[in-house]
Amino acid sequence: MFASAQRLIFNRALKSGPHPLPSSADFVSLNENTSISLLRRSPACPFTTTSAIQRFEVPVRTRNTGTVANMATDYKTIKGQEFDRAAFESLLRRKCFLWQSFEPYGAVKGLFDYGPPLETLEAEVMNIWRDHFIRHEKMMALKCSMLTPYEVLKTSGHVDKFADYMCKDPKTGEILRSDHLIKDVLETRLKGDKEARGEKVEATEEDPKKKKKASKLAKTAVKLDDTVVKEYEHTLATLDDCTGDDMGAIIKKYDIRNPSTNNEVEPPVSVNLMFQTQIGATGKEPAFLRPETAQGQFLSFPKLLEFSDNQLPMASASIGYSFRNELSPRSGLLRVREFLMAEVEHFVDPESGKKHPKFATVRDVKLPFLDRNTQMAGGSKVTIMSIGEAVDTKLVDNETLGYFLVRIHSFMEKIGMDMTKLRFRQHMANEMAHYAADCWDCELQSSYGWVECVGCADRSAYDLSVHEKRTGVSLKVREPLKEPVRIEEWQATLDKKKSGPKLKKDQAKVEAALKELTQEMKEKLSISMEKEGSVKIAVADVAGGEVTLDKEIVTFAKETRTETMREYTPNVIEPSFGVGRVLYSLMEHAYWTREGDAARSVMSFKPTIAPIKVLVVPLQKDVRFAPVLAELEQKLDEAQLSFKVDQSGVSIGKRYSRNDELGIPFGITVDYETLEGKGVTLRDRDSTKQVRASLDEVVAEVAKVCAGKGSWEGIAKKLPAFESKEAEE
Amino acid sequence: MFASAQRLIFNRALKSGPHPLPSSADFVSLNENTSISLLRRSPACPFTTTSAIQRFEVPVRTRNTGTVANMATDYKTIKGQEFDRAAFESLLRRKCFLWQSFEPYGAVKGLFDYGPPLETLEAEVMNIWRDHFIRHEKMMALKCSMLTPYEVLKTSGHVDKFADYMCKDPKTGEILRSDHLIKDVLETRLKGDKEARGEKVEATEEDPKKKKKASKLAKTAVKLDDTVVKEYEHTLATLDDCTGDDMGAIIKKYDIRNPSTNNEVEPPVSVNLMFQTQIGATGKEPAFLRPETAQGQFLSFPKLLEFSDNQLPMASASIGYSFRNELSPRSGLLRVREFLMAEVEHFVDPESGKKHPKFATVRDVKLPFLDRNTQMAGGSKVTIMSIGEAVDTKLVDNETLGYFLVRIHSFMEKIGMDMTKLRFRQHMANEMAHYAADCWDCELQSSYGWVECVGCADRSAYDLSVHEKRTGVSLKVREPLKEPVRIEEWQATLDKKKSGPKLKKDQAKVEAALKELTQEMKEKLSISMEKEGSVKIAVADVAGGEVTLDKEIVTFAKETRTETMREYTPNVIEPSFGVGRVLYSLMEHAYWTREGDAARSVMSFKPTIAPIKVLVVPLQKDVRFAPVLAELEQKLDEAQLSFKVDQSGVSIGKRYSRNDELGIPFGITVDYETLEGKGVTLRDRDSTKQVRASLDEVVAEVAKVCAGKGSWEGIAKKLPAFESKEAEE
Repeated sequence: MFASAQRLIFNRALKSGPHPLPSSADFVSLNENTSISLLRRSPACPFTTTSAIQRFEVPVRTRNTGTVANMATDYKTIKGQEFDRAAFESLLRRKCFLWQSFEPYGAVKGLFDYGPPLETLEAEVMNIWRDHFIRHEKMMALKCSMLTPYEVLKTSGHVDKFADYMCKDPKTGEILRSDHLIKDVLETRLKGDKEARGEKVEATEEDPKKKKKASKLAKTAVKLDDTVVKEYEHTLATLDDCTGDDMGAIIKKYDIRNPSTNNEVEPPVSVNLMFQTQIGATGKEPAFLRPETAQGQFLSFPKLLEFSDNQLPMASASIGYSFRNELSPRSGLLRVREFLMAEVEHFVDPESGKKHPKFATVRDVKLPFLDRNTQMAGGSKVTIMSIGEAVDTKLVDNETLGYFLVRIHSFMEKIGMDMTKLRFRQHMANEMAHYAADCWDCELQSSYGWVECVGCADRSAYDLSVHEKRTGVSLKVREPLKEPVRIEEWQATLDKKKSGPKLKKDQAKVEAALKELTQEMKEKLSISMEKEGSVKIAVADVAGGEVTLDKEIVTFAKETRTETMREYTPNVIEPSFGVGRVLYSLMEHAYWTREGDAARSVMSFKPTIAPIKVLVVPLQKDVRFAPVLAELEQKLDEAQLSFKVDQSGVSIGKRYSRNDELGIPFGITVDYETLEGKGVTLRDRDSTKQVRASLDEVVAEVAKVCAGKGSWEGIAKKLPAFESKEAEE
Repeated sequence: MFASAQRLIFNRALKSGPHPLPSSADFVSLNENTSISLLRRSPACPFTTTSAIQRFEVPVRTRNTGTVANMATDYKTIKGQEFDRAAFESLLRRKCFLWQSFEPYGAVKGLFDYGPPLETLEAEVMNIWRDHFIRHEKMMALKCSMLTPYEVLKTSGHVDKFADYMCKDPKTGEILRSDHLIKDVLETRLKGDKEARGEKVEATEEDPKKKKKASKLAKTAVKLDDTVVKEYEHTLATLDDCTGDDMGAIIKKYDIRNPSTNNEVEPPVSVNLMFQTQIGATGKEPAFLRPETAQGQFLSFPKLLEFSDNQLPMASASIGYSFRNELSPRSGLLRVREFLMAEVEHFVDPESGKKHPKFATVRDVKLPFLDRNTQMAGGSKVTIMSIGEAVDTKLVDNETLGYFLVRIHSFMEKIGMDMTKLRFRQHMANEMAHYAADCWDCELQSSYGWVECVGCADRSAYDLSVHEKRTGVSLKVREPLKEPVRIEEWQATLDKKKSGPKLKKDQAKVEAALKELTQEMKEKLSISMEKEGSVKIAVADVAGGEVTLDKEIVTFAKETRTETMREYTPNVIEPSFGVGRVLYSLMEHAYWTREGDAARSVMSFKPTIAPIKVLVVPLQKDVRFAPVLAELEQKLDEAQLSFKVDQSGVSIGKRYSRNDELGIPFGITVDYETLEGKGVTLRDRDSTKQVRASLDEVVAEVAKVCAGKGSWEGIAKKLPAFESKEAEE
């Protein structure tokens, strides 16, 4: 069972200072079976899945996976090369893709600025997202507020449950996540025990309760008592279900201390992960920065329903920022405090079988599935299956969920993800929120392992129901029934004139209690009344907790009425994208180095998303090139193509090479033959092949490919090849 | 002088409940001379201009503008009709353009959700912004964090000065802006006085110090003593320069009370307008939500300089959210607590004369200027002048500022703003920050009057300098001098061996003090030293505040060195867009009603920015239309055109009409002639004229116009006209 699966966490910390990403040296251990996923906040927490997309942890499928291999050796570039994270990060820094925010002030953990290449990459990717989802699927785009009143998030459950338990080291002020602390220490001790047993080293048996320097001792090979080993293993297996008090007891029982100081820690306290603030100056409007974009969409439900003429299914979509006050963010872009999400809320009639009108058009698309059963058996083998078969066999719960998996898949393909590094992982039963029917994560493989980048969950009617209950505002759909329905029901009717003098101020309470009675109960009571002339019913908040009612006051009768309208709370299927994680994976997937020269790295962004489309390089500094350069620049501008002119003194090869790191897909060279009216050369970044053609032809072809209507292969077939006279690279 | 100009403020309050915008009935008074602009936070406040784009106040140019006309009567639609704000707002609500956030929880003032039409409109407008500024001008796109550490905003001045003074009504807890309170009460009293004098009503003279019910009395015509009138007028004229204590004294002196309760108020306290929160759980990282995007850009300066190969001028651009904790937000979308900004920071060498390389290309563009002198004379007449002339005559300070005004102007034209409702207003001397050379606002006219939507200011070297000073991180440009420069300078050199025993722990302080001496001072001291053998210099933090140094210890000498590098802090020119205000103005400009039928309103969005491009209407419900509808939908999808199908049972005319309110520019009707292979009709929203052509032709033409490459006029010339058989409208 996944519930009892052990979780390894990253024992890493971001280096301080101007270090935008963790270096590979910080990396500890990942198994190829592992997924980087999210943490269940508590067993009953309603937002365990995509809404918690920032959670970042490694569930190990079984306790017996043996030695844990460093993923870095398994993870390859698209060209099959070893992936060198340090070199990759150096490129990101050098080319200003991103950096830690506020560097002159010492930088802040978990906050990143995007520099020009990454900001533009994000804009291009999100334009495609918008076209792929919002326009193509006719979703209703929404922009809701980030500042969110306390009451909204109280109702949704975030105030109470969107929290981690923390222990404070009272001497240093350091804050440690309680579950991480317990795992770290117990796993270290178990490892020490294994070493001790494996090496058959004579080691003193020890009682952990009395141990003074637990962690330090545990680092060496220390044999544990067999019963202690069992206790530790049981604790680790059930840690997910522990309350704060449970963890406090464990920490005390096993004398768990801060491993870096060996200080005793304070008992666990629950620390909410939302950023709190207040609206206005009165102190009467406490608020949070939203932890997900979903709640605003749910509260806009009446507007959405109006906008779609009361027709379901309908979907809203929101591209916006959310915030999580991570207490010790690590893992670079994968776990940050402020992040862009793109969330869809697809509202369906729960009685429709969650069919999707366009499912037939995608039936035959094949997807890579890592299902629940495989994971339970400790495996990670992906099954390739058509979505039609997956839904038919109930592997995927319903058509709507299935349709979205296909759309997520084709989106990833469209933006140039390495599709061999994508899988859909089904949530284990205990990973899901209690109400969810099924949930699948789109995971992308990177040097960090398999990372959840999109969640696709069924939130059922949960959110709409709790907000309706709290506010009294209807968040239901009302629709005429095709056929009016005759309903026979037991009714309990209070004769208020007669009951008033007797019940007095309790009358309303009694009436409410009668309303709450089930059909079965009412039928039973009608029989008692018949027999005994009076009945007793339980009424909360009255003296004695029950009231005796005689047949003068209340009558039970079966009545018939005709219903013409149906009222229901829709179910919600929610594909939820963590945009930063998608972008990070995309950058890793795009990165490779030229054969035989690891220093010459390339970012193979697709022309449609590349931040800069064209590199313009005059052969050398020569005023005679100025007019043709001006003409070229004007034509590129008219075609709305972004470009960069590199007029620096270095060789053309060098200029191409250093701009390959920015992922510029095309290079146009102006040379002396250009001045003789022989056109310009066009170079393809990935193959370094070139063609030669007139300025107009070249610009037109590039514009087509950058608009997604063509490819280099097409250009190479159409325009004459050109062999560079000087060896380019 | 503007400094002494009186300001009228909106005496309006947003109605509570589901009322997205203030209705026209709430509107009090605006003069056509007035501008809705920003408030100077304090005389020395460094962010008076565009960074305070949310400020929203009405400076009246002179005290003598006479009767104040209701702007609503002056403001017309593009068709010259009276603008009916209530009808316009009703359309925005009905068509789900926007609403107050969290309505089921009672809504929160100053927070709005954008529904599908407005969200998409914003996306389209921002895509054009991105293309017009970032791509075309080769700006470096940046995304910086919203969460901003305390220290950053302390340095920038926001912690101390980004505040309003507030008075609390201790009985109700109501919070009133102190300056608003004083103005409201004194102006009401002055008005009462005028009435009393104008109507020659006998009224008891009153001493405001003793008055018990000031505001209630003032509402009637009460004559004031002549000296009191003068005092009130002086107070109002100088209110902008008052400190909190000054205002406290005024409130006491004139017995100013909360007008709605007549309660005395507590003395003014400064309330910062930033949303405060904290990063992490330790309490050691206080932070704010940024009040502007600029600071992140300044702190990224070293990266930007690296990315642009150390070449200036360069510009960064950031599209992102900022936050202001407005204490009593009013005026709908024009003053909100969370808002999108698009800010450019253009860095120039201050010694370059702020020339712009592309200025020659825009020299002849004519712009509408409302200059400082005209405003000082109480006028509002706009001068149309070419930007070339404006810069030549120093009306506009420099080429770079001028170039941006032209680009702002052409952007507004591109997105379809009514260009007769646009002007550039120059800031008065006292409106600008102390360091600014010149500042112009792009103001758009709406039913609220002239509203600042873009500011274009010169922030000089202020921000980079203060951050450098605080952090010690260089935010300067270093560039090689074309010619090395020989510099002759007086140097003061301490002989540390000899000075050490004498100065002891003060040595470093003395050394620093010597370094700080001006050239002039050093020369003077060298003469004194020559004469007297010792000098006295002031040294802070040493006993006595000065130190006597003899010639054994320090020598003053003129030395010569050669400089090969130049170091300087760039100046910053900052065009700053308040996106919400631009969108609101755009919606008002696009709104009009059909001749003779005020109930049939139209939103004339340009096809390039319209949220939905095509309305598809089958003549009536008929299964025979299904195949051609499917074909049409596929073709529209392939052309990436957003569309809406209206299959409801009402007449075609009604269907067109109700979708005109969404601003859908084109309508395609499928009728029985379509089934006979006679194509479809294409209808133009604005003229309601139609053409008929094949499905492919129609889709191709629409796609061209929506991409900005053509117009309805072009289509009407090319394709055959079609007269509707049934009178459409």
